[in-house]
Amino acid sequence: MNFDEIIDRRGTGSDKWDQMESLFDVSPDDGLAMWVADTDFRVPQVALDAMQKLVDHGILGYSDATKPYKDAVCWWMENRHGWKIEPEWLLTTSGLVNAVAIALDTFTEKDDGVVLFTPVYHAFAKVIKAQGRTVVECPLVRDGDKYVMDFEAYDAQMTGKEKMLILCSPHNPAGRVWTKEELSEVVAFAKRHDQLLISDEIHQDLVYDGYKHVPTALIEGALPRLITLNAPSKTFNVAGANCGHVIIPDEDIRTKFFTRKKSLGLSPNVFGVKLTQALYNEEGGKWVDALCKYLGENRKIFEEGVAKIPGAKPMHLEGTYLAWVDFSDTGMSAAEVKKRITQDAKIAATPGHVFGKGGEHHVRFNLGLPASRIEDAVERLQNAFSDLQ
Amino acid sequence: MNFDEIIDRRGTGSDKWDQMESLFDVSPDDGLAMWVADTDFRVPQVALDAMQKLVDHGILGYSDATKPYKDAVCWWMENRHGWKIEPEWLLTTSGLVNAVAIALDTFTEKDDGVVLFTPVYHAFAKVIKAQGRTVVECPLVRDGDKYVMDFEAYDAQMTGKEKMLILCSPHNPAGRVWTKEELSEVVAFAKRHDQLLISDEIHQDLVYDGYKHVPTALIEGALPRLITLNAPSKTFNVAGANCGHVIIPDEDIRTKFFTRKKSLGLSPNVFGVKLTQALYNEEGGKWVDALCKYLGENRKIFEEGVAKIPGAKPMHLEGTYLAWVDFSDTGMSAAEVKKRITQDAKIAATPGHVFGKGGEHHVRFNLGLPASRIEDAVERLQNAFSDLQ
Ligand SMILES: Cc1ncc(COP(=O)(O)O)c(C=O)c1O
Ligand SMILES: Cc1ncc(COP(=O)(O)O)c(C=O)c1O
Repeated sequence: MNFDEIIDRRGTGSDKWDQMESLFDVSPDDGLAMWVADTDFRVPQVALDAMQKLVDHGILGYSDATKPYKDAVCWWMENRHGWKIEPEWLLTTSGLVNAVAIALDTFTEKDDGVVLFTPVYHAFAKVIKAQGRTVVECPLVRDGDKYVMDFEAYDAQMTGKEKMLILCSPHNPAGRVWTKEELSEVVAFAKRHDQLLISDEIHQDLVYDGYKHVPTALIEGALPRLITLNAPSKTFNVAGANCGHVIIPDEDIRTKFFTRKKSLGLSPNVFGVKLTQALYNEEGGKWVDALCKYLGENRKIFEEGVAKIPGAKPMHLEGTYLAWVDFSDTGMSAAEVKKRITQDAKIAATPGHVFGKGGEHHVRFNLGLPASRIEDAVERLQNAFSDLQ
Repeated sequence: MNFDEIIDRRGTGSDKWDQMESLFDVSPDDGLAMWVADTDFRVPQVALDAMQKLVDHGILGYSDATKPYKDAVCWWMENRHGWKIEPEWLLTTSGLVNAVAIALDTFTEKDDGVVLFTPVYHAFAKVIKAQGRTVVECPLVRDGDKYVMDFEAYDAQMTGKEKMLILCSPHNPAGRVWTKEELSEVVAFAKRHDQLLISDEIHQDLVYDGYKHVPTALIEGALPRLITLNAPSKTFNVAGANCGHVIIPDEDIRTKFFTRKKSLGLSPNVFGVKLTQALYNEEGGKWVDALCKYLGENRKIFEEGVAKIPGAKPMHLEGTYLAWVDFSDTGMSAAEVKKRITQDAKIAATPGHVFGKGGEHHVRFNLGLPASRIEDAVERLQNAFSDLQ
């Protein structure tokens, strides 16, 4: 567990490093990759050991969702999140965007509305639109240095055509860890408007001191309309394994999802299964605890450093490594902010508008880097906006 | 390249070995696994080296279909199969059943007919039915020790509702390597009935001396209605990596397929990309040549041995490691044949009826094992049917 180690990812096929030049015009040679959500940390040794075992065995044939794999997921959910699940509630998809897409395909029709609390992870809107459904943006409201929901406004927005609500919990970007009370309101809202609730909890494990992730499934009344999504991908930096977990306690919803998934010819790959099995245990848990502590420090360095730029307002992350900075008070156009970040600071970071309504004038920064690079990033940003001092 | 090595796969999560007891009531301790189509051979060292590099690097983040990966596929197709493809014709799916499913979903409607030349790989019919389409079985005709097509009969079967034809080339089971003339007839048939042609060429590399695989794409007039599928999975025993290649020269068909695939939130996993890139080159080619030679010997042992059982007629494999034995002349019921194979010979092999019309009274045996085990299998089978001598 040496999160300080600089691992050179250039030329390894990594999207984050190898595509930053073509996408952001930032060279990997003197730039910093702070966009797409994987980290530059080495995967836990237990997972690498499992991979090594596969290499030594030397055969990479068919391997389904095995019992030890399912048991590991059950262990993790119960021991880390206090949610006791049954192995048969678990379905495996090719990552979670795929899971969201199957849910949309199974439970909504063309032109149905799908509610998002924006700004939110941009792939939701992408698949909703790609399937000919309508994105219904319910904007989060800024309350000090965090986002909150405004259900009165959302109630007024509903037309009856909204059949599904996709919640991101913890929230990407801006790192809200929704409280039990807030989640209860979400569930009540979904019930009030008879919406299927997709709770994307991929960031469930990345929560900072003083906050606690509550699985939506533990909220009273949630289960009859709930699909929970999570994965080891963000937590353990194994996003390349395309392993998504879909947990559906309700039998009717589960059967429908399963039937559709099967008709799409999808089955787990051996790597996702083996990695999850190796990671979802005490050992993996210890690693996550250390990671969260480390990321908590990165967050502090970043938030304090960026707050020194006049007009730049970082939100306070409660979870996730996806920092969110509001540049509107700099008075600059989004294009000018972007120019300064990419060309002057040489940082590839995600422009806020891609996350939907409320994202304009914001930029998302991935803090999953060694602390020395976070310090470097802060310095670069302070310099890029130094004329504002 | 030591194909003789016995690698113990029991308890490794392998479907083939760990599910044989529950599915066939054959114990992995004294039984032989000859059903699902992966082999017991070690993956080529170049691929294991690539995996080792990943383990040593230690990061498993997002990695798209990279240029070196696409270039490797292009190299392989041109140098091994004489088909020059453009990198942009290539789309990656989560394996080939997934690719077939996306094609069905994109290009057919509920109740449309989909033509299969049966007996054929059973997952085709599974996904066709799961999507509410109709399987139209066009039975292959036995001609000596091989299957041939009967287009006059198939023409008479068509009603105009058949929108798609799924060809398996080389054919699983029974290992026909279709000739240029036969493929021309298939293309003409598809054209005559205005069907989209899915050519599943997953077994393209596994062809025996004296035969040659011809990509359907090289048949005149094929391209405007063709989707070609192939993969490194069978060839190199990396089926667990879920890496399917969909090659579509026609821009209109490609755009539609791509759009649907994207709306399902599917992207390649890092392992499939890295393995393919490591395997599709000269080195991988040499390995395949050696493998085919080895499998050719297995085939000889198996076919000669099984032919000694009165009433058992093995077809002569031209390609693939999936042997096909007709037990009808034993005069026994399928249940009796199954009993003798599973309970007496202790072999887990796939009953023929699952492959559709014409499969009854047949059994499919996977010959992707060390030769000593093929000899063992032959002896077991001869003993199990010794009363017929
Ligand atoms: C909320 C959320 N869901 C899903 C994903 C992506 O999941 P996957 O890579 O499994 O498709 C991300 C990645 O950033 C995410 O933030
Ligand atoms: C003809 C054919 N297509 C597809 C497959 C399976 O492909 P995948 O594992 O990529 O889904 C097989 C496996 O036996 C096969 O024989």
